[in-house]
Amino acid sequence: MFPKFKQHINSEMPFLKGKKLLLACSGGVDSVTLAHLCVAADLDIGLAHCNFTLRSDESDGDEVFVRQLATTLGIEVFVKQFETEQYAQTHRLSVQMAARELRYQWFSELLETKGFDYILTAHHANDSLETFLINLSRGTGIEGLSGIPEVNEQVVRPLLPFSQQEILAYAKSEKIAWREDSSNASTKYLRNKIRHQIVPVLKELHPTFLQNFLNTQNHLQQTNSLASNHLNELKSKLFEQRDGDIKISITALEKLQPLDAYLYGLFKDYGFTEWNDVKDLLSAMSGKQVVSKTHRLLKDRDFLILSEIKNTVNGTYLVHVDGTPSELPIKLKLENVETLEKQGRNVVFLDKEKLNFPLVLRNWEKGDYFYPFGMQGKKKLSKFFKDEKLDVISKEKQWLLCSSDNEIVWVVGKRADERFKVEDSTRQIIKITQLT
Amino acid sequence: MFPKFKQHINSEMPFLKGKKLLLACSGGVDSVTLAHLCVAADLDIGLAHCNFTLRSDESDGDEVFVRQLATTLGIEVFVKQFETEQYAQTHRLSVQMAARELRYQWFSELLETKGFDYILTAHHANDSLETFLINLSRGTGIEGLSGIPEVNEQVVRPLLPFSQQEILAYAKSEKIAWREDSSNASTKYLRNKIRHQIVPVLKELHPTFLQNFLNTQNHLQQTNSLASNHLNELKSKLFEQRDGDIKISITALEKLQPLDAYLYGLFKDYGFTEWNDVKDLLSAMSGKQVVSKTHRLLKDRDFLILSEIKNTVNGTYLVHVDGTPSELPIKLKLENVETLEKQGRNVVFLDKEKLNFPLVLRNWEKGDYFYPFGMQGKKKLSKFFKDEKLDVISKEKQWLLCSSDNEIVWVVGKRADERFKVEDSTRQIIKITQLT
Repeated sequence: MFPKFKQHINSEMPFLKGKKLLLACSGGVDSVTLAHLCVAADLDIGLAHCNFTLRSDESDGDEVFVRQLATTLGIEVFVKQFETEQYAQTHRLSVQMAARELRYQWFSELLETKGFDYILTAHHANDSLETFLINLSRGTGIEGLSGIPEVNEQVVRPLLPFSQQEILAYAKSEKIAWREDSSNASTKYLRNKIRHQIVPVLKELHPTFLQNFLNTQNHLQQTNSLASNHLNELKSKLFEQRDGDIKISITALEKLQPLDAYLYGLFKDYGFTEWNDVKDLLSAMSGKQVVSKTHRLLKDRDFLILSEIKNTVNGTYLVHVDGTPSELPIKLKLENVETLEKQGRNVVFLDKEKLNFPLVLRNWEKGDYFYPFGMQGKKKLSKFFKDEKLDVISKEKQWLLCSSDNEIVWVVGKRADERFKVEDSTRQIIKITQLT
Repeated sequence: MFPKFKQHINSEMPFLKGKKLLLACSGGVDSVTLAHLCVAADLDIGLAHCNFTLRSDESDGDEVFVRQLATTLGIEVFVKQFETEQYAQTHRLSVQMAARELRYQWFSELLETKGFDYILTAHHANDSLETFLINLSRGTGIEGLSGIPEVNEQVVRPLLPFSQQEILAYAKSEKIAWREDSSNASTKYLRNKIRHQIVPVLKELHPTFLQNFLNTQNHLQQTNSLASNHLNELKSKLFEQRDGDIKISITALEKLQPLDAYLYGLFKDYGFTEWNDVKDLLSAMSGKQVVSKTHRLLKDRDFLILSEIKNTVNGTYLVHVDGTPSELPIKLKLENVETLEKQGRNVVFLDKEKLNFPLVLRNWEKGDYFYPFGMQGKKKLSKFFKDEKLDVISKEKQWLLCSSDNEIVWVVGKRADERFKVEDSTRQIIKITQLT
């Protein structure tokens, strides 16, 4: 196998030569064999081993093994232990997803801090085939069938064209030692079924089944590139930038055929994977919207308005009396003044002693109310917004300046609060201006 | 199953109602069950049965069965016997391909002559899955994985969303009789392997595997539509019509990424499925070309010239002395004249008695030679073309007017032949003019 491996590096991955490569090494046969192959091919590798501490003694045994491997090969090794289960619980992730996140976070860190150029992983052709069949069984699209690319930004998979059989045969012939992995029992169950019951029969269908499969995946990747290019061209035509939002003509969308595929393709990157919801929106009442985790899509007469959802936790800022921190999302100027000056929508004059500093600048929340300046009694902000005819997105973007006890002082640019107004008894007037 | 079938017709294929439908019926469980379902759903069907005479008694038994089925259901039946093996030999096709061609030819004929609107076939979900896996094993692209569409022009497949299991269960519960088919042993071998060894395990991977698979195929079809739309837009931009040929800028082609996918996509409909050949052509010497069964692609400095290959068998026309048939590919006027008149590239004067009628108008063939007018001796046409600096496509398009014994009389528009020239002994001069 070594000549084929070296030839593959030379012809397809010449950019790896002379670069610092970090090989993700579990201790299993694939990554250990890849380490040996890389060293034999004079590639400059170090090993990175994640100890996910999921299998106690066994995990520690893997760690010891990988450390020894690095010594034997005379290369650097990096090891990190993770509290994977705890991380999974905190972040509400499956243990598998948690391990994945932790691994890639740490790898990125190593790339940056240790001067590595690429990460190598030991995925091979059978991994691709197994993933293909698992995705097929669950239902998927072209991405789920196209497989992982050999080179994806800084992650490189030099074993993708090789079969598990080839790798194993090489490891045995070279008397390479490795650790058997008993983790991921549930994934293993599916993968073992595929490995032992399905793949052998698929190979009987055609003598070069695995190679044909890889060619097929390559074709799918290419078709997917064409479709992506098409969607990107279309986005640059149809998606009009407007005040940080995107405005899209419904008439233009409705001309696209097949509509379902276009709606899915155009909006999937914004988290809208249910094209049916988007399709319904086209003919919905103005004002209706659908939301994804990151975006909202609002029907506004003949247009869809696509806008990012502001995360209200991140959208809380402190406004100190001694100056305006530069990181505020809007520019506010605070100054002490002697008398009321010229009024305006972007200016308020308040009784400074009624305020508790630091002030808080935040977006609105359900249940918010205030005492509109010049009126008696309180008013729900939702009602105020309605009377002001604000659309969903404008509401979302509306800033509220609050006293530190969370009472609304100013619906910024719209209306001050009666409670903080300047009265005869006021000893210090503060003028707050929203600069544009 | 019947309620689901009827619902499927109502929601997805309402256009079938009230139309004349021709159901392709082999006598097997799928097509026989479909016939029963259609009749129960009040669809207006007739049966078409092909007797391919490949299994003698068994084939005839199938025919008798289908005729009886039609009588029982009270519907029309059409039966045709084919000499399939002979057709396969004559047309150098596999028996399977021959049967396919014969079937669809006859079906088209029935559509036209008997006033049917659609052909129904009994393909079901498991057929799609088997085809998917067979294509996967051989290596394929998105088309090979996307499956057959439910509606493809006049061919409709109402059972595609249903599993073989459902159809069989329904047939049994309704005590429907059918014929077992022992044909296509080699295809059967592959399909049986898939049916009995692979599909059951795939179903264990996910409880709704077959449904998920159908959804996946639907997604692939949609992605493929996006890619096709993209390629069509691109063709209308890059493919310049020029005298019946298509001219394409190499610079424009080279900008496309991924180039391989674009070259394949742009030229596959012209029979160029080896994108590598086309890619090589981009950087080849001017004058180099690749040919497919139907087209040639010529590198001509900064352009590729795409042109249809003239079929020289079809490109042979008879030119009778008593007038010019209208179907000639070029316009020729034949007239008897008294004396030599004004000369020109588009006119020749010949000794009529030296010619054998009807004359033959054809393209050039390898080995052609003639006796150029005004020269001594013969000259190969290939040499003549070279001296005249004709490019490949112009050569291809060059017409030759020949005597019926195949001697070249006139390289049309270029040079007459010495052997047929008007001499002192000439008794009747014929003037032939190429009209433009």
